Amino acid sequence: MRRLTDFVPILAWAPRYGRAEAGCDLFAAAIVTIMLVPQGLAYAMLAGLPPQTGLYASILPLVAYAVFGTSRTLAVGPVAVISLMTAAALEPVAAPGSAAYVAAAATLALLSGVVLLAMAALRLGFLAHFLSHPVVSGFITASGILIAAGQVRHLLGIGAEGDTLPRILLGLWHGLGAANPATMAIGASATLFLFWARHAAEGSLRRAGLGRRAAGIGAKAAPLFAIAGSMAAVLWFDLGAAGVRLVGEIPAGVPPLALPRFDAALWLDLLPAAVLVGLVGFVESVSVGQTLAARRRQRIVANQELVGLGAANVAAAISGGYPVTGGFARSVVNFDAGAATPMAGAFAALGILFATVFLAPVFGFLPRSVLAATIVVAVLSLVDIGALRRVYAYSRMDFAAMAVTIVLVLLAGVEVGIVAGVALSLLLFLWRTSVPHIAIVGMVPGTEHFRNVDRHRVITSPDLLSLRVDESLYFANARVLEDRVLAEVAARPGVRNVVLMCSAVNMIDASALESLEAIADRLASAGIGFHLSEVKGPVMDGLRRSEFLVHFKGRIFLSQHEAFAALAAGAGPDPART
Amino acid sequence: MRRLTDFVPILAWAPRYGRAEAGCDLFAAAIVTIMLVPQGLAYAMLAGLPPQTGLYASILPLVAYAVFGTSRTLAVGPVAVISLMTAAALEPVAAPGSAAYVAAAATLALLSGVVLLAMAALRLGFLAHFLSHPVVSGFITASGILIAAGQVRHLLGIGAEGDTLPRILLGLWHGLGAANPATMAIGASATLFLFWARHAAEGSLRRAGLGRRAAGIGAKAAPLFAIAGSMAAVLWFDLGAAGVRLVGEIPAGVPPLALPRFDAALWLDLLPAAVLVGLVGFVESVSVGQTLAARRRQRIVANQELVGLGAANVAAAISGGYPVTGGFARSVVNFDAGAATPMAGAFAALGILFATVFLAPVFGFLPRSVLAATIVVAVLSLVDIGALRRVYAYSRMDFAAMAVTIVLVLLAGVEVGIVAGVALSLLLFLWRTSVPHIAIVGMVPGTEHFRNVDRHRVITSPDLLSLRVDESLYFANARVLEDRVLAEVAARPGVRNVVLMCSAVNMIDASALESLEAIADRLASAGIGFHLSEVKGPVMDGLRRSEFLVHFKGRIFLSQHEAFAALAAGAGPDPART
Repeated sequence: MRRLTDFVPILAWAPRYGRAEAGCDLFAAAIVTIMLVPQGLAYAMLAGLPPQTGLYASILPLVAYAVFGTSRTLAVGPVAVISLMTAAALEPVAAPGSAAYVAAAATLALLSGVVLLAMAALRLGFLAHFLSHPVVSGFITASGILIAAGQVRHLLGIGAEGDTLPRILLGLWHGLGAANPATMAIGASATLFLFWARHAAEGSLRRAGLGRRAAGIGAKAAPLFAIAGSMAAVLWFDLGAAGVRLVGEIPAGVPPLALPRFDAALWLDLLPAAVLVGLVGFVESVSVGQTLAARRRQRIVANQELVGLGAANVAAAISGGYPVTGGFARSVVNFDAGAATPMAGAFAALGILFATVFLAPVFGFLPRSVLAATIVVAVLSLVDIGALRRVYAYSRMDFAAMAVTIVLVLLAGVEVGIVAGVALSLLLFLWRTSVPHIAIVGMVPGTEHFRNVDRHRVITSPDLLSLRVDESLYFANARVLEDRVLAEVAARPGVRNVVLMCSAVNMIDASALESLEAIADRLASAGIGFHLSEVKGPVMDGLRRSEFLVHFKGRIFLSQHEAFAALAAGAGPDPART
Repeated sequence: MRRLTDFVPILAWAPRYGRAEAGCDLFAAAIVTIMLVPQGLAYAMLAGLPPQTGLYASILPLVAYAVFGTSRTLAVGPVAVISLMTAAALEPVAAPGSAAYVAAAATLALLSGVVLLAMAALRLGFLAHFLSHPVVSGFITASGILIAAGQVRHLLGIGAEGDTLPRILLGLWHGLGAANPATMAIGASATLFLFWARHAAEGSLRRAGLGRRAAGIGAKAAPLFAIAGSMAAVLWFDLGAAGVRLVGEIPAGVPPLALPRFDAALWLDLLPAAVLVGLVGFVESVSVGQTLAARRRQRIVANQELVGLGAANVAAAISGGYPVTGGFARSVVNFDAGAATPMAGAFAALGILFATVFLAPVFGFLPRSVLAATIVVAVLSLVDIGALRRVYAYSRMDFAAMAVTIVLVLLAGVEVGIVAGVALSLLLFLWRTSVPHIAIVGMVPGTEHFRNVDRHRVITSPDLLSLRVDESLYFANARVLEDRVLAEVAARPGVRNVVLMCSAVNMIDASALESLEAIADRLASAGIGFHLSEVKGPVMDGLRRSEFLVHFKGRIFLSQHEAFAALAAGAGPDPART
């Protein structure tokens, strides 16, 4: 029985909300607000949108997720990968920065919200399982490289464009001569400062005598120092006049509330991208949410997360934002700062609303190169090249899927890359199951256990051939099994009985059933018995429903040991091994 | 070591070719020639091509297959399904019957020949395994219905068009008023006669006193009687003047030898269809060839069949033909008539060449409705509606793939239907493996064998949870396993150890490896041991290559029985069952 609190999780925790939780949540919200304001501006820039769009996308969506989401600590808002995907999706339909582009961004958020809600209604959360870890990891690594490379032009103050790595590099090469020295100086120092802040500041502050908590807060607040410092420098040295590109005027005020206009052609154009944005956002968010929930022994509910993220995206769409999801960096900050309930997100929304209404114009003096530096430092921490080496050592198939994802994201863009990666990982799995491992097995001495004659010292019998097929039997491998069984029998003239050990057969489809009948017929006409052992319950149920058992003349043994006891004559150590 | 005879099988049998084989082959060739001439005309009409194209496609391709093919009895030439696919592929690029249409048909044959040869070079014959039996069976049934429905207009003598069932029926409905009585009379009597010939003639002739062999030949020659009789009627009653549509002038002479002209745009347009035509033809041909080879204890080699069919299609392309493959009906006739070697095909080619050079103009007086009747009777014998019921009883998944193939072939055409059927069967398999069957197992008393506690009376221990997961562990099901293991443990507070029995795990990919690590971590933090048993050799090799075993604190048991002996305390009959 599902209850109302399953659909609106806020009803489960809000009634017991007390002073202690409020204290924790307010503190976490303050930290997150400080982090979200510059991130919102930066990611909006990455998506090709006006800076305030990033702030708008960090208000109402947080409230929507607080009502419908199941993670206690997930922080929702604009994230790097989704911003990049937004730019890639909108680039063909409108000119970046134009009013049509802003409207299309809201439409994309609405569509991906609706897609997520529809997936929740159809209980399709399991679809996210089809994105394998290596593909997701490769996608995030490649996106990080692509995003960082794309920001270099802002660090140099040049106008290069491009949405794939070769085009970005070519653009940088051509534009290099026009680089602005003041912009470069600011960009380089901001990047170095932020790298230090992320990787070494906490240690330095603690060595300087600060307490653990204060040092942590200090390190988290570093971007704020970079931003405040750079704005002070802009005003003091009049860097705008020196050619340093600034964020420019940001209108102050509450987000505009409006539903995106219906435009059938645009909606159809954006739908495939909306599905991808929704799915990728869902996978990113759920993996962050699960990691954090596990640390505190909490649980998140995948299907309800679809509702939470869907609501957050619809909220982004009606308040002038663009697609959002649960971000890794900010969620960890929220968690570390001690957020107790989703109310922390609602408080952060209030903080950002305050900043949007009262502080927005101030950020107009922020150099774009400083925002670019915050993006570069954030996304490079997502790049995990070592994962390629680890995956390669374990599985060539996983490595192939990961490498193809990375290469195609870099060379052909995010959408092509992720679709090709998922397709390849599925095709490789199918190919793998179509060439099953088939072992000849014998009895491990002193046990009733049967293992591969090539790997273990086992007992076999010259007139009994026991084959273990290590795969479900279905159309793609049915013929392979047929050929292999007949070849093995042809190579052993003394064989009187063949037993197919089905401990690894989890399914037999209609095509494979025909192959089993063909094998039985061929062996029968050669005077050889064909039997099955260790057929699993669900598989046996299927055989009983078919006409297979009517014609099948062999026996079906509960265990391979029973089959061996009944059929093996003159058993002894496997001659191939002695 | 592969030898020249593997690539050119004719070298293996030709040196030993003697008088006995020649006698058998000549007789079979005569029968097949009689059958192939009207079929060639009919299928060319089905493909929207001039009638002589069907004859041309029945000469050189047979010789090419005789040289390169491995089946002793397969008869290659135009077939119904491939003719329908040819019409569907050419319809968008040229007007049926036009010179451009004829040239495009030859191009399609060339491309599908090249595709087949390329698949042979890349050893991609296994791709045919991905067409499941239910999908192929559904495709042939639906194509048969579609072809038969499409021929009704010729039986009625009206001009209705259409390439999907609704459009065909609509066209017939609108054209019904214009039906020609003479055409209908000829069409109906030819259809009834041919149905009788196919299903009852042999019995009637034997009851009339003919020997078994003579009766068989008489029945096979029935189409010839229908053709000769109808042509006599045309000439006698001057039916052409009565509005009966005739085949019309057929030029006599040898097939024109020429390579199709290179046209990049056309080749690109036709390539997808060429891949489909090649694959479907290959699957049809190989299944016919395998069925016949099995009856005589011969073998066909799938990869060399690609070469044989590829060569046959290239031969069709350079001699004014269109795509060909091994046909079911004519191969069975060839087999039954006693063909001993592929030389029968070469002799049949000579027979058809003779008919093309000397008899072609005679067939100009043949009514189209008689050709339509031969097609209808031939394809309706391929329709197997009972297969739907049998597959439904055994497997809902296979049934779904088959039903979707049938419905889409009828409603959206052959290409959409087969592609959707293959895609759906693959997706259903993936979905099936993404929700694995997981059983709690206990020891079958008196054995070392472990089975599902829900299906067998077994011995379990309250402090040991033994789970058998019935699927390879990979990204699509890794999370499901994680959730299930943790849920089962949460429901059993007394559990001290968990053993995952891996007898059905044929692969663990990188994503699943992370899930196993996550499960081990979660159980360890709850003070519960996590162990594996019956890990297969190839899977264990993979684990050894990874860092999994470095962190893994549990034990890996050779058999589940060993694990039970080491870890179970207070074992007894499973309480859930006693």
